[in-house]
Amino acid sequence: MDEIITLDYGSGGKKTSRLIEGMILPALDNPALRPLGDGAILPGGEPLVFSTDSFVVDPLFFPGGDIGKLAVCGTVNDVAMCGGVPAWLSCSFIIEEGLPAAQLERVIASMRATCEAAEVQIVTGDTKVVERGRGDKLYINTAGIGQLRYPGLSPRAIREGDRVLLSGTAGDHGAAVMLARSGLMQGELRSDCAPLNKLAQALLGTGLQVRVLRDPTRGGVATTLNEFVEGTALGIEIEEERIPVSGPVQAACELLGLDPLYCANEGKLLAVVPPESEDAALALLRSFPEGRAAARIGTVTGQVPGRLVMKTRLGGRRILQKLAGAQLPRIC
Amino acid sequence: MDEIITLDYGSGGKKTSRLIEGMILPALDNPALRPLGDGAILPGGEPLVFSTDSFVVDPLFFPGGDIGKLAVCGTVNDVAMCGGVPAWLSCSFIIEEGLPAAQLERVIASMRATCEAAEVQIVTGDTKVVERGRGDKLYINTAGIGQLRYPGLSPRAIREGDRVLLSGTAGDHGAAVMLARSGLMQGELRSDCAPLNKLAQALLGTGLQVRVLRDPTRGGVATTLNEFVEGTALGIEIEEERIPVSGPVQAACELLGLDPLYCANEGKLLAVVPPESEDAALALLRSFPEGRAAARIGTVTGQVPGRLVMKTRLGGRRILQKLAGAQLPRIC
Repeated sequence: MDEIITLDYGSGGKKTSRLIEGMILPALDNPALRPLGDGAILPGGEPLVFSTDSFVVDPLFFPGGDIGKLAVCGTVNDVAMCGGVPAWLSCSFIIEEGLPAAQLERVIASMRATCEAAEVQIVTGDTKVVERGRGDKLYINTAGIGQLRYPGLSPRAIREGDRVLLSGTAGDHGAAVMLARSGLMQGELRSDCAPLNKLAQALLGTGLQVRVLRDPTRGGVATTLNEFVEGTALGIEIEEERIPVSGPVQAACELLGLDPLYCANEGKLLAVVPPESEDAALALLRSFPEGRAAARIGTVTGQVPGRLVMKTRLGGRRILQKLAGAQLPRIC
Repeated sequence: MDEIITLDYGSGGKKTSRLIEGMILPALDNPALRPLGDGAILPGGEPLVFSTDSFVVDPLFFPGGDIGKLAVCGTVNDVAMCGGVPAWLSCSFIIEEGLPAAQLERVIASMRATCEAAEVQIVTGDTKVVERGRGDKLYINTAGIGQLRYPGLSPRAIREGDRVLLSGTAGDHGAAVMLARSGLMQGELRSDCAPLNKLAQALLGTGLQVRVLRDPTRGGVATTLNEFVEGTALGIEIEEERIPVSGPVQAACELLGLDPLYCANEGKLLAVVPPESEDAALALLRSFPEGRAAARIGTVTGQVPGRLVMKTRLGGRRILQKLAGAQLPRIC
């Protein structure tokens, strides 16, 4: 990696991977650290899922959410995607001197409302204040714990012929935040920020086989699907015309020069399921408001090992790599 | 509270209490949130202790430690002080663009070494990068989980006549960091930053009665002892001449205009024990290198309800309040 850490390293894409896999994981290596993408599974009386994220989104308030809602959803969703039933959160604030107390109150009220919606509790926390110019209004860290009810979810469980499902439209959060930051007219575009634990538990609780679940946040759908297959003998082929993208997201992405497949989502999940589970899984997802636009967007294939390929509307095939640079800094 | 959050709100003293107790706790109120100072006790298969802290110390490296060692010790110690056996940590980085990668590597190596010393594992994490001027080199959040092996520790268990023990000299961390920040000669002064879980478990595992344990970090010994008795019918009287303070800490505090009783400690614990446990508890603490300067510094009394009083060397009595302002910003 470079000798100096630049914004690119926070993008959720290739450089973030290099930082995490090249430096952080090898240095901290231990048996519990590696197996899952966004959380650890802990032994103990009953196995637990444990996950954390820090949130540095700019601006603090955006259409469809705010940093507080995001901080609860982000960690709730990570625990749920690991097969856990999120129950308890920690919450830590790093406040920049000069933040109006009313803004902090608004964020905390939003956290509380989101906790109630997700049926989780914030049970411990911490508050630090830094000087002006040493932060940006407010950063929040949450860590979350839940009991592991659905073990075995893993990209390693993926098999050739499996279906790739997306629970709704792609790119809403990233496009909404970038448009809010640009100061341009926002129209109908809203972040999809939402807790996904009930949707995930419904899907996992039916007895349908599910290989892996993941919420495609930083780096978007294209980066997460790359992570599923990189270094394996399997690839994923998605079809452009099957990927649900809302009109406002399309318009914002054109305006801002973004690609919805690389824009963060904060209320969508990707599920890989065997072919025989596809119809039932889609029907179930669509029975929830947050999953009503669910679609099969692709298939697991042995043709392009380790790669994500997109069949375009015009019939061509294009390799989609992990996000390469800082397309969307400070998106979550 | 004020309409604008100032640095004072991060000092660990009165304004921090107002922010947490006046705004954050009421807004997030739930049954699990309140009972303990620095962690939550969770029901479940086996009860767990869960705690978190964000670390914003300036400078990143100081004599006796660095932000990585501090981030592991701080959360390990909070779990241990709640009666838990710390086992698993999360670790989240907020990196300011421009941080030399070598500094991050050094911090991570220090975290790993400290985890090994404390026999805990970092099992999940997150990495964000913010623009120059939106952070300060590196902030770290850790959250920690441990099984609750020693339930019932609480300031509410304190009784009149109980003894107040301090496991070593006061103020080393705060004085060392402030001296490092001042750029003045540092001499022998070093932070006491250290994991306390083995010391705490030895003390709690003997069968000796212990009312409450707490590591006096931000706000120091005086603030923590105030927290033990505030709002109760009991007070604490400490004796100035019994409080161990090292020569270098005394010299640094004189130079910088600080009071060692309000300086943060990161490798010391306060224990309140019944009188019949005093001798055995002190002997046990002193049998560990990190507790060799342990001392009884005071007694719980019914004479000064809700107050901390210090009998001075000259025989006078002085009320010590919680830290009032930002004596030591960015100390941990």
